[in-house]
This record gives sequence, structure tokens and C-alpha cells, in this order.
Amino acid sequence: MAHSARSRLGAGIAGSLLSLAAYAAGQSPQPARSSVSAAAPATAAPLVGFSAAAAAAELDLERRFDAQLSPAELEQWMRRLAAAPNHVGSVHDRQNAEFIAEQFRSWGWDAHIESFSVLYPTPRTVALEMTAPTHRVASLREPPISGDSTSTQVSAELPPYVIYGADGDVRGELVYVNQGMPDDYRELEREGVSVAGRIVIARYGGGWRGLKPRLAYEHGAIGCLIYSDPRDDGYGRGDPYPRGGFRPPQAVQRGSVQDITIASGDPLTPGVGATPEAPRLALADAKTILKIPVLPISYADAEPLLAALGGRVAPERWRGGLPIAYHIGPGPAAVHLTVRSDWSRKPVYDVIATLRGSEEPDRWIIRGNHHDAWAFGAMDPLSGQVALLAEAKAIGALARQGFRPRRTLVYASWDGEEPGLIGSTEWAETHAAELIQKAVLYVNSDTNGRGTLRAGGSRALMRFVSESARDVRDPETHASVLARALAASRVAAYDAGRPIEHGVQLPLGALGSGSDYTPFLQHLGIDSLDLGFHGEEEYGVYHSAYDSFDHFRRFVDPTFEYGVALAQVAGRVMLRAAQADALPVQEADFAAAVAGYDDELHKLLDQERERSRELGELAGAGDFALASDPQRPRAAPPSAGEVPFINFAPLDNAVAQLTRVAHRFDREYARALADPAAAQTIKRMNAALANAESALLDPQGLPGRPWYRHMLYAPGRDTGYGVKTLPGVREAIEDRRWEDAGRYVQRVARALETYADRLAGALGGG
Amino acid sequence: MAHSARSRLGAGIAGSLLSLAAYAAGQSPQPARSSVSAAAPATAAPLVGFSAAAAAAELDLERRFDAQLSPAELEQWMRRLAAAPNHVGSVHDRQNAEFIAEQFRSWGWDAHIESFSVLYPTPRTVALEMTAPTHRVASLREPPISGDSTSTQVSAELPPYVIYGADGDVRGELVYVNQGMPDDYRELEREGVSVAGRIVIARYGGGWRGLKPRLAYEHGAIGCLIYSDPRDDGYGRGDPYPRGGFRPPQAVQRGSVQDITIASGDPLTPGVGATPEAPRLALADAKTILKIPVLPISYADAEPLLAALGGRVAPERWRGGLPIAYHIGPGPAAVHLTVRSDWSRKPVYDVIATLRGSEEPDRWIIRGNHHDAWAFGAMDPLSGQVALLAEAKAIGALARQGFRPRRTLVYASWDGEEPGLIGSTEWAETHAAELIQKAVLYVNSDTNGRGTLRAGGSRALMRFVSESARDVRDPETHASVLARALAASRVAAYDAGRPIEHGVQLPLGALGSGSDYTPFLQHLGIDSLDLGFHGEEEYGVYHSAYDSFDHFRRFVDPTFEYGVALAQVAGRVMLRAAQADALPVQEADFAAAVAGYDDELHKLLDQERERSRELGELAGAGDFALASDPQRPRAAPPSAGEVPFINFAPLDNAVAQLTRVAHRFDREYARALADPAAAQTIKRMNAALANAESALLDPQGLPGRPWYRHMLYAPGRDTGYGVKTLPGVREAIEDRRWEDAGRYVQRVARALETYADRLAGALGGG
Repeated sequence: MAHSARSRLGAGIAGSLLSLAAYAAGQSPQPARSSVSAAAPATAAPLVGFSAAAAAAELDLERRFDAQLSPAELEQWMRRLAAAPNHVGSVHDRQNAEFIAEQFRSWGWDAHIESFSVLYPTPRTVALEMTAPTHRVASLREPPISGDSTSTQVSAELPPYVIYGADGDVRGELVYVNQGMPDDYRELEREGVSVAGRIVIARYGGGWRGLKPRLAYEHGAIGCLIYSDPRDDGYGRGDPYPRGGFRPPQAVQRGSVQDITIASGDPLTPGVGATPEAPRLALADAKTILKIPVLPISYADAEPLLAALGGRVAPERWRGGLPIAYHIGPGPAAVHLTVRSDWSRKPVYDVIATLRGSEEPDRWIIRGNHHDAWAFGAMDPLSGQVALLAEAKAIGALARQGFRPRRTLVYASWDGEEPGLIGSTEWAETHAAELIQKAVLYVNSDTNGRGTLRAGGSRALMRFVSESARDVRDPETHASVLARALAASRVAAYDAGRPIEHGVQLPLGALGSGSDYTPFLQHLGIDSLDLGFHGEEEYGVYHSAYDSFDHFRRFVDPTFEYGVALAQVAGRVMLRAAQADALPVQEADFAAAVAGYDDELHKLLDQERERSRELGELAGAGDFALASDPQRPRAAPPSAGEVPFINFAPLDNAVAQLTRVAHRFDREYARALADPAAAQTIKRMNAALANAESALLDPQGLPGRPWYRHMLYAPGRDTGYGVKTLPGVREAIEDRRWEDAGRYVQRVARALETYADRLAGALGGG
Repeated sequence: MAHSARSRLGAGIAGSLLSLAAYAAGQSPQPARSSVSAAAPATAAPLVGFSAAAAAAELDLERRFDAQLSPAELEQWMRRLAAAPNHVGSVHDRQNAEFIAEQFRSWGWDAHIESFSVLYPTPRTVALEMTAPTHRVASLREPPISGDSTSTQVSAELPPYVIYGADGDVRGELVYVNQGMPDDYRELEREGVSVAGRIVIARYGGGWRGLKPRLAYEHGAIGCLIYSDPRDDGYGRGDPYPRGGFRPPQAVQRGSVQDITIASGDPLTPGVGATPEAPRLALADAKTILKIPVLPISYADAEPLLAALGGRVAPERWRGGLPIAYHIGPGPAAVHLTVRSDWSRKPVYDVIATLRGSEEPDRWIIRGNHHDAWAFGAMDPLSGQVALLAEAKAIGALARQGFRPRRTLVYASWDGEEPGLIGSTEWAETHAAELIQKAVLYVNSDTNGRGTLRAGGSRALMRFVSESARDVRDPETHASVLARALAASRVAAYDAGRPIEHGVQLPLGALGSGSDYTPFLQHLGIDSLDLGFHGEEEYGVYHSAYDSFDHFRRFVDPTFEYGVALAQVAGRVMLRAAQADALPVQEADFAAAVAGYDDELHKLLDQERERSRELGELAGAGDFALASDPQRPRAAPPSAGEVPFINFAPLDNAVAQLTRVAHRFDREYARALADPAAAQTIKRMNAALANAESALLDPQGLPGRPWYRHMLYAPGRDTGYGVKTLPGVREAIEDRRWEDAGRYVQRVARALETYADRLAGALGGG
């Protein structure tokens, strides 16, 4: 997997916050600023959270860190790690974990492998045939591709499948459901097509893979096929592999369909680590395992099925890139789908490496990237893994030169991310109490390629992350990584005719799910960041056997220099978080982000109300019947009823309070930091910040999914990877659970008030 | 062709304008109104421009008119007219004209054929071969299709070609230019690809066909291929013929590439009728003939060419529906293109039928639809032609029952529309003086199929057209045609999430070009309407040999009932315009439309200024270079310079004056109409209206195209069919001709002032 954390350094660090005013000035839209930030990295740039002397030492440390990084080493590690299939349970997966642990130890880290025993079904029998109108057996194989050396290892791979669907042997008429998302089922209803008792075929995209079979099942389907449409990552994007980097006809996107929107991790041990002694659910009681068989297929296998569909022509936005008229069905195409699995448990091997802090050993700065893949996984996850290894090796070398981090550095190489963030989740659940106490920041990466830096996390860390990006050069343009990212976002806005943002900081996106930050952020409430370069790679082989070393070297990051750039950015984030005197946060940025989320909720409710009113009006006037083509009737959308007004006042008041306190806090903090005699004040304020964070978790969690406890961010129940901010309220509005909406307005408000009270409590009497 | 007129009944008609207030109330967004209008046609509905007694007589007349209409007759006429290829110069084209004239005469009309001799090149040699990287000869043929009886007449058809490209024999590398529109060339420049000395391949769509080779030539290309991408009217829209109604792989879109944005009609006789004695330009001096050879091809012929292109992958929005990665080139694909034509003149046969008015014989209400096609032309143009014939036959029957129209009815069946509106233009130019004096309204139709009524024309006629639509029932739902059209537009807005318009009148779109109203509206300043049903046909065989009777009967209007519905709507418009006591116009609607156009110009200039400012800022900061992928550089857009402020005050003042006068005029008019003693006032006001219209023409015409004289509407110089309102100013802003912009602000203002003064002059002293 590979997708986007709010983040805050968590605990009592004393020091001085420099250049607040200079940075703040930079936030105003002055074009001259972007020229400044486009300049080469400053040699004596201010560092948030560092005194001048400490900053000089830090920059020197970083120069020595950079000197240790070598693209050739990243390439060598990737070649080795991607040499054979390395999915959970494979020999090479264990070998990789052992190799990684050994490397850490050789670089001076205290490293060990922590293993969990988790449910990991693997296919015994997988078959698909079209039974009508003609007979045809699907290939379900990814054949060797010329020039791709590992693609010949077909027998060593697991056959293409998705994990955590049900076993089954089903026959039925086929229905094309577009991407199989909620809107698509609403459209099917208007078209008068039911999937009940039938087998759906959905194309990838539009939301988390696992939602497709879940929603199909909820609508009565008995089986689900998911295929990669060439429009989305095949020839519709560029030349297919091996001519280009995009999906060739036989490539299949494997993946997990576990319902991670309920909880991530081993389906049998929700909320607790999958240790030998852990209590385990019976398979039938595992809520995150689906109820119908599911199979992913290539577009070569999908085309004859889709071409054989009759019934209505699919709506315009449903049409993909195959050279056919897309029909919905049902039938006459019918299929026979068989999935039988080995439901045994397999071991996952997390590698955990520690470099103990010299001054605050019980404050942990954690870095993670997974090492398991679906097949060879050069891009996903090894591109990020080799950057992480490069950081660890460089830090090890610094340590040999005498460096000791002020706080403890933890480097983790997760196993079992692909099936459902299992390695990270089981480790986080096993060590929950210690992590809640000690973890300051979790820094994640996953896939990485040529392009510009994308970062997700809390808006309070915008400045901190931006400074790290500012101080690293883009490998190809030699401009600063920050300047390139900002220029790219401005040019993209210009080209699309959107308003141009002239901010000088990297806009951090709120984190949903899809990679290993989820257990840390959304279950334990630990600030998280997610980092990666993207946008200039040619990558359409996601989760296929062609995500290989040979592919990567041609189309993703041929020189491995963007791997080094990731190591430089993530390494700086880790080292600065470990070494800083003071917490490099900006509470006003955080408050502004939350105010924005609140504003969106107001607008969402107003839109829903207006939309309902319009629907009622048009339906009442008979417009839908009149407008419908009599030869192809299309029903009115179901009436959604009245949308009430909700009392947002508690939330609005909490946001107003937070905003006031945050501004005051930032001012006081800056004043205290500039005053060498105010060390005790700083300490108190930092302690308040650390303590405040826990206010944003709610012990009851979100409706129907108590594992997700953060009141500000969650993966959407109906989006999967995509984030929902203020999810308790937002999803209640979307789903028209008015009582939940009102209740969660109160809960979110309480969380924000408590947070603001704690900040306020740390302020002096003023 | 088939595309959209402002319109006003032009002269001294006395009588009373009823129900103004009731209709005006209907304009406010009251949902209950749409229920009312959805009800069955009222038996005693008010008719704008009719006294109560006259309205009753008119409605009785219309009932008798309706009783004469028979779908079986439309079918029979179409079967005959579409039995053989009927392009200009074909035997069947002349036979059709003779048949139509004879029919008119048999129905009691005074009918004759008026012929012109016009330049009409036909292909002698047309050939296309790929010369690199492999050799392949294009088929350039539309083979017979099973179940399509006329598709076997391949030898009788002209081979697929476009008319008025240059002859040539050219060889060159191929470049894919998307739709070949101005934005596409801007994109090519940023991608660093030049078409100079090369042959372009453009897909259909995005603008008038003739712009593609013209712009290619202006950018240095030596030849132009145009192909029909399956995304646009092939399997991307639905099942190809014969399974469905969309474009099959071998079907070619023929058409004209004459530069009709300069002038329509015979290229050798611009501005004058192509009579035997007319002075004619030498071929080399004809401005509307292009300079490079052009050939239209099918997607079957295009696919190997596009698949052989290398170079960059085309931008996302350029990608079509073929199962390939679209590349831009240039090369390695290269082609050899030959086009040699017979440049002789051919005759066009317009059929003109007249029923002389009993009271105001010198006021003409004109109805037109062309009869020539590219091959068989069932949909284009015969679907509209047979509706026109049905109207004429029914009116003839009424005449035999004693009916005499108050004003003169002229029914015209044009020839030579396809090559460039030639039959209508030559007739309009030949009779210009008489038409300017006598023509009150021109009512056009062209293609027609299942669906809802679409109408174009002046906003002053909104109410008039809406009433005609209100009084006709949709053949399938039996609701009023107006109610269905309004419901369809509301539901389309709801489905797209756009604001819903709750008006109770058919929103008339401003007319650009693409059918026979252009010479009447934009050259002679005669109000025009364009009418047709659309939206529920399956029609992807535009301008191919498969636009046949068999295709039409299966996919366009199987029962010919929408042909009858068109006859009912257009027949009512004709009869009411001929019989009304008073001009059924609403000057305030017109003024509101003009104010809207003016507002758009303000916004356009502001947007251009903002966009230029942003471009300068980003370019100055080096953002485009920074954001560009170093492996695939993309240049900054060329600097567009400063956008000045323009003095819009003259135009704004003229619009304000028009608005004040229009409201006063409508009030006075309504008051006078309600007063039986005010007949003389009505007469004076009507005369003012007729006279006012000419104020909107400018004798100097538009910049670079004096043939287009209307100051409010023109086909866009860079859109072709698409309308530009206030074109003198709008296009000057778009093209950054600031001096022209200022000058045309003055001219448009003067035209509107004169118009408003004339309205004001007709008012009493109050």
C-alpha cells in the first residue's frame, strides 16, 4: 500500500523557537518570497526549535549525514530485497527481515526481529470462466515479460488474488458496477438494475479496493471481480510495460480487501497484539473479513467479459479505455468463480532498531516503512525501504563518529503491511502503553519515485516539514525540494485554471489510511507524518509482478537519487525531531486547519439541505418522469427526506476558543523562547503541548468502529484510504444519522475545548 | 450540417398582446408553475399577439393543421428522398428537388426551382498511405453493412472527402494535434513540438471542422488528416452500427472545410448571388478555400497511424478511445497524402414555394430546411426536410379548405447546405434587397430525432416559441413539449450538481452557424429561429454513408412521431407569425440577454487580466522551469503582456438605456394592446420595432469579415459553429486586439443606442 498524519512533537523539550516573524512574513503572498525559497539551500538557515548554536551543530551533523548517502547502495539493497517474491509467509520475506536486522546491527543499532502470528489466507484454488454467452477460461496469470528478469519466477509467486475475501464457488450473471462505490449503486438503482444474486465486475479506482466487494455484498451480490481498466493505469496513462511503465494487458492488481475502515491489523486480534498468548477470534467472528469471493483480474481477462455484457449502455463517466461500448448488464455474460484458500496463520517479521537517546531516552522518534510486498515490490515498498536503510546506515556512521541522539531513535521495517498494516498494527497494539507514553512522532514512508515531495500530517508541523524540504536539493533541478514542490503546485493550479496559493510552506494533507501511520495516528493518537516523492515516475504496475527492479530502474527512479532525496528529507525530520531544543509547532496553523474543517461541515450540511430541497421539488413536479427517455426509463433518486438544522454552536465555540488560545500560545511561546531566562516557562508550555494531544482521542471512538479514536481524522467508511476530517460529524451528515451528528458535534467540541484549556493552562497569568 | 437566431417579428402588425402579466408571473421560480405547464395543452390557452377571438380561430386552425399530419407520410418521403446519394451535382439531388417542387405544387403552393451555378469540387484521386515505420494503404472506403440497404451503393457515392481543401500530393512526418484548436497549438508549443513541414492528424470535435486545416496551415503544416475518434461518436458513446446507432470503425465524417467564418456560400461569389451573370473570383482569389490538402478518415484507418507515432505521450485530455497510448510524434509515422479534385461548377437547386398573404402580402414568414446531403442523409437533413414537407402539405390542405394566410408564407428547400450553406446564401444574396424589405422571420430546421425540443434565436421571442411548444404534446410521454424540455433541463442541472433554473420558458440559445439561418440572420439581419428535437436518438453516423433510412428507422425516430412533433411546433410558429395581430415580442427579455452578454465581457477582460498577471508572476519566479519534469521539459506559456482596462462605459450606458426603454416599451405596449382604441399606437410601436432591428447591423461588419454584419451574434472566428455574442468586442479581447476592442465597444453601443432610440421614439410623450 502507499497512501498519506497529523503530527506534533510530543514532549518537554526546552530551547528557543527562532525566526517566527520571518517565516510568518513569508506566508503572505509575495512572489519575491518564492524566488528566495527557490534559491539554493541556505547555509545558515534558521531551524525551528533550535538555538543558533544548536542549529549550527545540527546543520553540520546533517552535512555529515548527507555525505554518507550513496545511490549505489540503495540500488544494491533494492536489487537484493526484490530478487524474489517477498510476500508474508515467503522464504524471501523472512530472509529480507533477517538481512535488514543484520544490516542495522552492523551499523551499530540495537536491532531485533519481533514476530507475530497472524491470519494470512493464501489461495489454493482460484478459477474464473465465462459460462455464457460463450465459454472462456480466464488466464489469471502474469506471464514473463521480455527484459524483466524476475517476471520468470511465476511459480514462486502467489497467483494474483486479493486477501480476506471469502471462499466460494459461485455462478451468476455479470453486472458492471463501474467502480462499485456508493454513487455507482445509486446510479444502478435509477437505471433499474439489481446486483442481487449476481456477480459484479468493478473497475479499480474511486475508493479503497475492499469497499467494492463489501458494497457489492451489501447490495446482494454473490461474487465480485475487480479489474484494472487501461484508462486508469494502462495505455490510457502512457505506454504499457515494457515499452513504458504502465500496466500491460495481463498485469493484475493484487491487494487486501480486509475492511480496514473498521480496524487495521490481524483480523483475529483486533485491538491487541497478535502474540502467541493473545486471545483470537474464531474466523467466523472476524468482522473485517468479507462474505463473498473476490478476484482481481487483468484487462486482458476482463475485456471478453465486458464485451459480452448486454443491457443498457453504461453512463458516460463509467466508460473505461477498452475498445468496446461498456454495458451494465445484467448478463447475458455469466461467470463461474471459484476461490479456495489456505486459512492458516503465518508469521510476520518486524525489524525494530533502536539508537538510545542520550538526554531524553524515553522520548521516541519513530521511523517506519514496510518490507513485505505482493510479489517483488521494487516500488511498493522497497523504494521507501531502501531510503530508510540509507538513513539508518548514515546515522550509524555518525554514531561511530561519536554522535548520540538527544532523544531515542527507533527505526522499524514492518512486515505484513500489504494484507492490512499488520506488522505495524500488531507492534503498536502490543506496545500501546509504552508508545502512548514515549512516542513523540511517527515518520512513515512507503513508495517513492521521481518527482516532487508530497507530505501528509498535522498542519501544526507545516513549518517544520517545510524547513526540512527547504534544506534538501532536488537531484535533477538542484533547486530546493521545497521550492520545486511549491512551484509545481502553483503551476498545476495555473494550468487547471484554479486559484493559485502563494503560501511558502508545504501544504500538509490530512492523513486517511493506506500505510503504516494508521495505528500510530488514529488508534494511539501519536503524531505522524508521511513522506514521499511522486509525480514524474511512470508507474502503472501497482501490486503486480511487474513492480520489479528492472521496471523501477527504467521508469521510477533510474538513478536512485530520489531515494537519496527521501533519505535526506526524512533523515532531517528524524534528526531535528531528535535534537531540537523546543517543539517546532505552530498552534495557530493547527487552529486554522480545524476552523477550515468546521467550515466545510457547515457547507456540507447546507449543500445537503439544498440538494434535498431541490430533489423534493423536482420529484414533486414529476420532472424526473418527464425528463426520462421513455425507451430507457431512469427513476428519480430516492427521496432523502428533510435535512434538519444541526446545532453547530458547541463546535464553533470550541474552534473560536482554540483559535484565540492558539494565537496567544504562539505569541507567548515565541516571547519565552527569545528569553534565555524563560527555560522553565518553555518546559511548562512544552509539557502542556504533549499533554494536550491526548485530548483529541475519544475513548469510545467513532460510531461502529471504536478502534478509530481520533476525533479529527479517519479513513472514510465509504472511501477507505481517503481521509474524512471531523469524521464523527462529517460521516453522520453524509449518512443522515442526525442523532450521531449532534452527538459528535459535542464530542469533537469537548475534545477541542480540553485541548485549548490545556494550552491555556500553560500560559502565564496574562 | 445542423447547428443554431435571434428573432423578432418585423413589421406593422396591429392587435392585442394578451396575458403578459400571467406569463411574467410564471417567470418567478414557483415550482407549482411547472406542474401547471406540465399539464396537457390548454384548450383555450392565451396566445401572445392574438386577440381572444383571433386566438380561438388560430387554435381551431392549428387543430385542423394537426389533423393533416401523418407519420406514415414522413416515412414515405424520407424513404424516397434517401434512396440514393443526393449530394450537390448528383442525379438524385436534382430529382429530389423536382419531386419536392412538384409536391408543393400539388398541394396548392406557387413553387419553382431556383438554380445557381457554384464551385463544387469533387474528388478525382484521393489516397493515403503510411510510408514509415511500416507501409500501409488506408482503405478510405465505407463498406456495406448488413441490414443497411443503401450501404451497397458504394459506387454511386462520392468517396469520403472534405470539400474546399486544396489539391496536393504531400509526404511528411505525422503529428497528432488533438482537436487541432488554438489551445492545442498552445499546448504543442509548450511541449516543444512543431507541425511545420509536417502533416497533422486531428480528431473531430472541439470546433468547426474547417478550423483544423486552417490552423494547421497557419502553423506551417503541409497536410491535414481528420479522423473520428471512437470516444466521441463511436463505441465511447454506445454500440456501433448496426448493433447500435453509433459510428462503426469504417465510417467517415465528410464535410466542408470552407472557411465559413469569413462568409458562407459559393466561394467564388462572396456577397452576391451565384447567378449566371454574377462576377466570379478566380479560384486563387477565393478567401474561403484552404491552402493545404485535407482528408477525413475513419478510426479503422486512423488507428495504425496513431499507434505508429512516437515522441511524447499526449496530454490526458487529448487521449481518445482507441486502445493505444496516444503519442504526439512527430514521426516516426510518416504518410503520403494525395488529393486531386474536379474543380468544376455544379448546379444547386433551391425549391421556393409561396402562399401569398391575403392582408400583408409583403410581409414574409420564411421556413427553410436543406435537402442535399453527403450521402443518403436520412437524419441530416431529411429528418427536418420531411417535417417541413408535412407542414407545407397540411397548410396546402387548409388552403383548399379556404384558409388564406394574413401574411405571405415562403417555404424553402435548400440545396448545397453541406458544402457551405450555399443554396440559402446564394438565394439570400440574390434577393437581399427584397428580403431586407419584406422578410419578418426565418424559421430553420435541419436534423431532428427523438428527444426534447431545442430552440435557438433571439431572447425577445422566448415567450412566443415557448407558447408554441406548450401547445404541442410530446409523442411518447404525451406531456407538453415545453414541460418536457423544461423538466429535462432541470433534471440535467440536478444530476450535474449545477444550479437549477426554474424559468417557465424555453431558454433560446444565441445562434452561431452551421445551418441555413446564417445568411438571413448574420448577413441580412433577419430574425431567425432554429428548431429541432434531440437527445434521445442514437446517432453517431453524422456525414457518413450510414446516415441512412434503415439507420434512422432503428435508432433516430423509428415511428417518425418526432418528425410530426417538429412539424407541429414549427407549423405553429409559422402560422402564428403569419396570423398574429401584434408582434409577439418582449423587449425586456431581449434587453436582459444583452445585459448578460455585456456582463460576460467585463468578466472576460478581468479574467484575462488576472490570468496574465498570474502568468507573469509565475514565469518571473521561474516556477514553470522548476515545476517541469527535467526528463520531459515543458515550456512556460508565452508571455501575453499586460491586459489594459478598456472603457466599457459607452456599452454599459447603452445597455442601461436599452433596459430602461425596453421595460417602458413593454408596459406601454401592453397598455395599448388592452385598449381597443389604441390601434394606431400599436401600429406605430410595431413599425418602430421593425425599424429598430436594422440598427443592430453595422455596414462595415466585423473585423476582417465584413460579410458578417450583426453586432450581437456571429460564429466565432476560432470556434466556427459556436456563437460569439458581441463578437466585435469579445473576439478582440480574446485575441488581444485592444484597439479593435475599444472601437467595437463604440460600435455596439451605437447600435444599441439607435435601437433603443427607435423604441423610445415610438412611445408616447410619457
